[in-house]
Amino acid sequence: MFFRGADMKLDIPKAIEWDGKEVVIIDQTLLPLRLKKIKIKRIEEMAIAIKTLQIRGAPAIGVASAFGVMLGMKNLKERDIRKRFYRSCEIIRKTRPTAVNLFWAIDKIKEWFEELVDKCSYNEIVSRITEMAVDILKDDEKRCLRMGMNGAKLLKDGDTVLTHCNAGAMATAGIGTALSVIYYAASKGKRIKVYVDETRPLLQGSRITAWELKRAGIDVTLITDNMAGWVMRKKGIDKVIVGADRIARNGDTANKIGTYSIAILAKEHHIPFYVVAPLSTIDISLNSGEYIPIEERGWDEIIMRFGVLTAPRRVKAFNPAFDVTPSKYISAIITDMGIVYRPYTKSIMNLMSQEKGFRK
Amino acid sequence: MFFRGADMKLDIPKAIEWDGKEVVIIDQTLLPLRLKKIKIKRIEEMAIAIKTLQIRGAPAIGVASAFGVMLGMKNLKERDIRKRFYRSCEIIRKTRPTAVNLFWAIDKIKEWFEELVDKCSYNEIVSRITEMAVDILKDDEKRCLRMGMNGAKLLKDGDTVLTHCNAGAMATAGIGTALSVIYYAASKGKRIKVYVDETRPLLQGSRITAWELKRAGIDVTLITDNMAGWVMRKKGIDKVIVGADRIARNGDTANKIGTYSIAILAKEHHIPFYVVAPLSTIDISLNSGEYIPIEERGWDEIIMRFGVLTAPRRVKAFNPAFDVTPSKYISAIITDMGIVYRPYTKSIMNLMSQEKGFRK
Repeated sequence: MFFRGADMKLDIPKAIEWDGKEVVIIDQTLLPLRLKKIKIKRIEEMAIAIKTLQIRGAPAIGVASAFGVMLGMKNLKERDIRKRFYRSCEIIRKTRPTAVNLFWAIDKIKEWFEELVDKCSYNEIVSRITEMAVDILKDDEKRCLRMGMNGAKLLKDGDTVLTHCNAGAMATAGIGTALSVIYYAASKGKRIKVYVDETRPLLQGSRITAWELKRAGIDVTLITDNMAGWVMRKKGIDKVIVGADRIARNGDTANKIGTYSIAILAKEHHIPFYVVAPLSTIDISLNSGEYIPIEERGWDEIIMRFGVLTAPRRVKAFNPAFDVTPSKYISAIITDMGIVYRPYTKSIMNLMSQEKGFRK
Repeated sequence: MFFRGADMKLDIPKAIEWDGKEVVIIDQTLLPLRLKKIKIKRIEEMAIAIKTLQIRGAPAIGVASAFGVMLGMKNLKERDIRKRFYRSCEIIRKTRPTAVNLFWAIDKIKEWFEELVDKCSYNEIVSRITEMAVDILKDDEKRCLRMGMNGAKLLKDGDTVLTHCNAGAMATAGIGTALSVIYYAASKGKRIKVYVDETRPLLQGSRITAWELKRAGIDVTLITDNMAGWVMRKKGIDKVIVGADRIARNGDTANKIGTYSIAILAKEHHIPFYVVAPLSTIDISLNSGEYIPIEERGWDEIIMRFGVLTAPRRVKAFNPAFDVTPSKYISAIITDMGIVYRPYTKSIMNLMSQEKGFRK
């Protein structure tokens, strides 16, 4: 389950794979204690995998959604093909609300489906949707590499980078978004030192990012989230690099809870703050970040850890999974199609029009 | 182990007590799962209790140190009284480096000891040191109440406050530092809503502060540390109130790691940021915060939780227990002798001279 990218020399795990017959994912809830691959055979299993964060990260969720719909076409009971398709889309849609890649993937498949449905047999439709899912996976792989290539230009040999949550290989079908930049720079011989926020409550930073970077041979140091400001002051952080779950047309970025705080801390310390995401993460239907729906998750994620109560029984908690960083705090957005700067509404729309040209 | 302060109507636990014969502390490492009191009979037990955070919080450590020296006078083997005393001081001094109250308490007892040593018998010295420790405890109790009284003036009915770590009853011999302000305001009928950072790595916010506030009937909501910025933006935080482990002459404040980040976030959101501490936390021998020694603790606190590995084996970590918030981010310092404002070097020295008058 390891692969080598174009000129990469680092071994990096794959979050989701298609072996021609089955979808295989790493169960990320078990990392770093166990590296367990699971086969996903039914749409219900994929929905649970997404909801329970066995697979997570906006681009990976996009890919998983496409495969989920494909599985639904195979295992759901509805006799009517159109109903079966829309029921599949519905099941996946309801899993998680913030990452736009999920909706993007489903909408893409829907367009294709509507073109096919009246012309093709059931078998042809299923095999065409499978191809679409594989295309989305391969496309994400390529885009990760291009984000890495584009972003690595901003990193100098010797730079120290702070990152949050996991925007690595395990958040995509490729080598990651934020971490692709680090991987790519490292593969070109730049020595990059990385500080990783552990990212409470679910510890994606310590469990996944630290694991990914360490096994790729990157110099990584783990900190708790509340150390970010002090580390910026004391350890000479040169750049902050994070991923994104949804980016509005004006550049406002929803990402893992804590990103907003880090962006403010970066500004106070005059440290560039970069967001890295594929174009599919940009939702041009939203004028600003205030329209991005923010998933709130169960209080138990904060109050319980590993079956141990770490707070008084029945205490209230607040558990937003994401926050929105206003674009004024974002120094640049690094995409697979290039790097954009303020004013984002203009630069993002420019990029989108190039993308359309590029896709043809 | 509950007491009612002057006009307080809230039941608040006591972190450390002297029953006339023995020192009793709550083992805070077991909170909130178990409320277990332990008797401390030997100086070695007190040193371990301080090091392992069974008792913690700058003022409580000050009180515990005084009792520690008293216990050392009773149980250490050195035959020479002076040697026994200085050995006791040494054992306590080595426990934790940042909280100045520890050194303050020991220095206070030393002064007294040097006055007594040649005039009194061993028994008289021990009973005098015991009285001193009890005085320091009672003094801290009174000072907590005065901090509450002074600070409560800054809180309005309906205010929402964010606090970090535990600067409550469990950090003192009285009703706390930062939380005394909340308790006092609440006892006067002001409805105060509190958001508490869980405070990684050791979760003093969720384990201790949320527990203390909830049992006192205060409206408390638990968040992870990385939510502080987002909560300021979305939940209308009116004030941030924290404690302190050491305050330099210019107002720079060492407090639990994460305080520095919160101070910057408060500034960005135009929220007043208050530090609450007794005068014994101010170290006028230090011109600025850069001279405050910062304790670094073991990596296991970050990498392991409850016996479960939450990060890759042998990953590097950085674990400073405290950070220093420059005084420019601090709106006011609330002490038992009054509230001081910028420029702190001047206002703190003024306060100190009043204190000398007050003590006479």
